[in-house]
Amino acid sequence: MSSIRNIAHASSLSRLAGKFIVFEGPDGSGKSTQFRRLSALLAQQSVPFITVREPGGTVTGEAIRAALLDKKHTGMTVRCEMLLYMASRAELCETVILPALRRGQLVLADRFVSSTLAYQGAAGGLPAADIAAVARVATRGVLPDLVVLFDIDSDAAAKRLSPLLDRMEAKGAEFHRKVRQGYLDQAKADPARFAVIDASRSEEQVWAQLQATLAARP
Amino acid sequence: MSSIRNIAHASSLSRLAGKFIVFEGPDGSGKSTQFRRLSALLAQQSVPFITVREPGGTVTGEAIRAALLDKKHTGMTVRCEMLLYMASRAELCETVILPALRRGQLVLADRFVSSTLAYQGAAGGLPAADIAAVARVATRGVLPDLVVLFDIDSDAAAKRLSPLLDRMEAKGAEFHRKVRQGYLDQAKADPARFAVIDASRSEEQVWAQLQATLAARP
Repeated sequence: MSSIRNIAHASSLSRLAGKFIVFEGPDGSGKSTQFRRLSALLAQQSVPFITVREPGGTVTGEAIRAALLDKKHTGMTVRCEMLLYMASRAELCETVILPALRRGQLVLADRFVSSTLAYQGAAGGLPAADIAAVARVATRGVLPDLVVLFDIDSDAAAKRLSPLLDRMEAKGAEFHRKVRQGYLDQAKADPARFAVIDASRSEEQVWAQLQATLAARP
Repeated sequence: MSSIRNIAHASSLSRLAGKFIVFEGPDGSGKSTQFRRLSALLAQQSVPFITVREPGGTVTGEAIRAALLDKKHTGMTVRCEMLLYMASRAELCETVILPALRRGQLVLADRFVSSTLAYQGAAGGLPAADIAAVARVATRGVLPDLVVLFDIDSDAAAKRLSPLLDRMEAKGAEFHRKVRQGYLDQAKADPARFAVIDASRSEEQVWAQLQATLAARP
């Protein structure tokens, strides 16, 4: 009942101005599709907002992104990888995110610290306390007002990405299972900040749930 | 007296095997010249050792070095810069320094965490506690057995680098004065780990003092 009422009120997103909202979830969760739909709706409603993606979003961040994606560096240690993500995030926070929030804009981010905790932490093996310590320095303590987690079983996400594959190769499957659990554990530990959306449902159903979430929070 | 006795015993550097020794100091301090002389002596005495330089020393580290030196990124925030140095350091520690120490080799490093504390901290304005928190994660707590600080007045160092200049431009001079003070404050806070060498003296005098230091410590 409450969610139907909220959808009815979702037409005005202007109250999100000055908030910091992060979309999280694995590839194949439909996160990016929903990100584009919400961006279009915000533009239509003339809500002042910017979108950012990680890693990247700044000149230096894009160079870091290229280094992270370069096949030459596939042997990179997970500790170095984590610090590179944090370097990109520090630049993005200080030069893009914080100024936008100060101007009263909504900042909509595709991935933030939660990705590092899920991928390099829960799945990659780095202690969460180590990542949190570096994140506090990199972000200067900036926390999202709301993290929308697009949750989906890792096998289902893999099938969306590669419809011809029945299952991911064994190591990949275990890694992605840990990523999902890493995300869910974060949501459980901080329910006031996280909203978990069932991303296995249809695009329209997910979109409706996203709008209901935004109407109710943050 | 004690230093003369030490020089007499300095012929055997083999006791340094398995130690981690870092050279620190500003450009123009003669640090790199002494680094090369010591490397040659270690090779001559068949001491098992490796040398490393920061940033760089790994495939990923060299890519990070290139990004740090690229003019395109001169507007980079000091926080991002610090995290990039730490990313390079994490890779170097885990894949080069720690394995060498475990094999019983002497590791001789041209710059390490103290540089970040001096340049991005004391001179760049980042809180030392922030840098220390990230350094603990990046290095997994590895500390040098000895840090040799080649101390020199920043004007004197600048004159060595650019003999035609009477003085550095104002902002540069202030920055380099803070770097020096940042180094000296670290040495004062941890005298058991630091050895301060007067790098304003002649190359031969500095070399003699370096040998005496190594004979006495760590």
